[in-house]
Amino acid sequence: MLIYFLDMFGTAVFAISGVLLAGRLRMDPFGIVVLASVTAIGGGTIRDMALGATPVFWITDTNYLWAIFITCLVAIVAIRKPRQMPWYFLPVADAIGLAVFVAIGVEKALRFGATPMVAVIMGVMTGCGGGVIRDVLAREIPMVLRTEVYATACILGGIVHTTALQLNADVNVATLAGIATTLTIRLAAIRWHLSLPTLAPRN
Amino acid sequence: MLIYFLDMFGTAVFAISGVLLAGRLRMDPFGIVVLASVTAIGGGTIRDMALGATPVFWITDTNYLWAIFITCLVAIVAIRKPRQMPWYFLPVADAIGLAVFVAIGVEKALRFGATPMVAVIMGVMTGCGGGVIRDVLAREIPMVLRTEVYATACILGGIVHTTALQLNADVNVATLAGIATTLTIRLAAIRWHLSLPTLAPRN
Amino acid sequence: MLIYFLDMFGTAVFAISGVLLAGRLRMDPFGIVVLASVTAIGGGTIRDMALGATPVFWITDTNYLWAIFITCLVAIVAIRKPRQMPWYFLPVADAIGLAVFVAIGVEKALRFGATPMVAVIMGVMTGCGGGVIRDVLAREIPMVLRTEVYATACILGGIVHTTALQLNADVNVATLAGIATTLTIRLAAIRWHLSLPTLAPRN
Repeated sequence: MLIYFLDMFGTAVFAISGVLLAGRLRMDPFGIVVLASVTAIGGGTIRDMALGATPVFWITDTNYLWAIFITCLVAIVAIRKPRQMPWYFLPVADAIGLAVFVAIGVEKALRFGATPMVAVIMGVMTGCGGGVIRDVLAREIPMVLRTEVYATACILGGIVHTTALQLNADVNVATLAGIATTLTIRLAAIRWHLSLPTLAPRN
Repeated sequence: MLIYFLDMFGTAVFAISGVLLAGRLRMDPFGIVVLASVTAIGGGTIRDMALGATPVFWITDTNYLWAIFITCLVAIVAIRKPRQMPWYFLPVADAIGLAVFVAIGVEKALRFGATPMVAVIMGVMTGCGGGVIRDVLAREIPMVLRTEVYATACILGGIVHTTALQLNADVNVATLAGIATTLTIRLAAIRWHLSLPTLAPRN
Repeated sequence: MLIYFLDMFGTAVFAISGVLLAGRLRMDPFGIVVLASVTAIGGGTIRDMALGATPVFWITDTNYLWAIFITCLVAIVAIRKPRQMPWYFLPVADAIGLAVFVAIGVEKALRFGATPMVAVIMGVMTGCGGGVIRDVLAREIPMVLRTEVYATACILGGIVHTTALQLNADVNVATLAGIATTLTIRLAAIRWHLSLPTLAPRN
C-alpha cells in the first residue's frame, strides 16, 4: 500500500532531521535515538492521545520503531559528512514525509469522528508536532513557529483534503489531492528559497 | 449558561496572552495561532488526557477553537499598540479566565471519579498548564513557577471548591465559591502589585 | 509488597532531584512542588497516556502525591545545606528509584499487551521521562540525552527483564533481574565517576 510505504519513508526522513540536530548538539547515541524518535512519532503520538486512539499507533505497529532504529544506525554510520549531500535532498524528502503525515492525521481524525476543522488541526499536529517537541528538547524556539510556509502548507493541504471529502470525492482522490497540495507548496517554498526547514541555521 | 460563557471568555483572554508573547518574539501568523491555542486549551488538554476524557474537550466542542481564531484575528488587527490599554486590563481579564478554568477543571475531575486532592490538582493544571506550555515553546522558564501568588490562588480556589462540596454545599454554590476565592486572591495580588502575570517583564 | 515500597521510595527520591533543581533556580514553593511532581510522576504519566491506561496511575492511587508532598516539605525544611550530604547519597538513591521505575514501566506495558520492544521503551520512558520534563521546564537540555550511561542502564535493564520473561522465567525473578541489571550499571557508573546524574554541574 503506497500510503503505508510513504508513511515509513516520512518516519525515516523525520528521524534523520532529529539525528542531524542531535549531532550538532554533540549528543550521545541514546540522545540521537530519542531525538530521532520524538521527531518521527511525536506528532502522531499527541494526536492519538488527544483523540483517545490508545494504545498509540507505534505501540500497535512496531514497524515505525524499526524504521527509526535502522535510520539512526544508517545515519550514524554513513552520513558523517552531511554537507556532501546536495543541499535540496533533505528538504525535499522532508516535504514528502510532511505531506503524507498531514494526510494520515486528517484521515485518522475523521475516522474518530472529528469535524473537518479539527481534522485539519490534527493533520497539522501530525506533521509539525514532532519537530516542535524535537526543538523544545534541544532548547530551540520551535522552527515551525517561525517558518511561515511550513505550517501554512500543512493547513492548506488539510483544507483541500477535507473539502474534497465534503464534496463527495473518493477517499483516495481526496487523500492524494491533500498530499499534492502540501507537497507542491513546500517544494515551491524550497525551490524559491522561501525557507530551508530542517537545515536552516538557527539563531 | 454563565459558566460556559465565562469559559469562552477565559479561552479568549488566555489566547491573547499567547498572541502578545508571540508578537514579542516576532512570530508569524501561524506561530501566533499556535501559541494562542496552547495557552488557551493546553491545560485542559493535558487534564483530559490524564483523566482519559478523550476525545479531549475541544475536539467535541469546536466553539473553543472558534473563540481562539476570532481572538487571534481581532488581536492581530486591532491591538497594534498594546501599551495603550490600561495596564490592569489584561491581568484582570486573565484573573477571571483563570478562576473559571480552575473551577471547570475541578468539576470535570470530580465527574471522572477523582478524589478531592486530585481534583484540586486538575483545577490548577487546567488553569496554569496552558501558560506553562506557552512559556516552554517560547523558551522561557514558565512564569507560574516563579510567580507565587498565581498558582497559590488556583490551589486555594480549588480547595474552597472541593471543601464546599464535601460539606454538602450545592454544586453551583461550591463552584461560585471556588471562582470567587481564586478571583479575589488574584485581584488582590494585582491591586497591590504582588505580581503582573501575563505582562511582567521576563529575565 | 517490596516493589510498591520501592516505587514510593523512587517517587520520593525523584521528587528530591526536582526540589534541588528548583532551589538552584530560586523557585518559590509552588514551583518546587511542580518540579518535584513532574520529575517523580511525569514519566509514568506519559506512559499511561500512550498506553491508554487512564485515568493515569496517580489519579487512582494518591499515595504517590502524598509521597511527593511530604518529600517536598521535608526537603524544604531539612535540606538547607545539600552540600553537607555525602556526594554519593543522591546518585545512589536515584539509581534505586530508576531501576524500580524501569521495571514497573516494563510490567505495565506488557500487561497492556505491548510487545517486548515497546515494553523496554515504556520502561525507559517511565524511568527517564520525568527528568526530561523537569529539565525542559527548567530550560536545560535534558540531562539524560547527554549522559549516556543513564539511559543505557535503563535499556539494558529492560532487555534483561523482557528476555527473562520470554525464557519463561517467573515474573518476580524477571523483575528482580531487570532491577538488578539497571541498578548495577548505574552504581558502576557512579562508583567510577562515569557520570553524576542529578547533581552534575550544567553548562
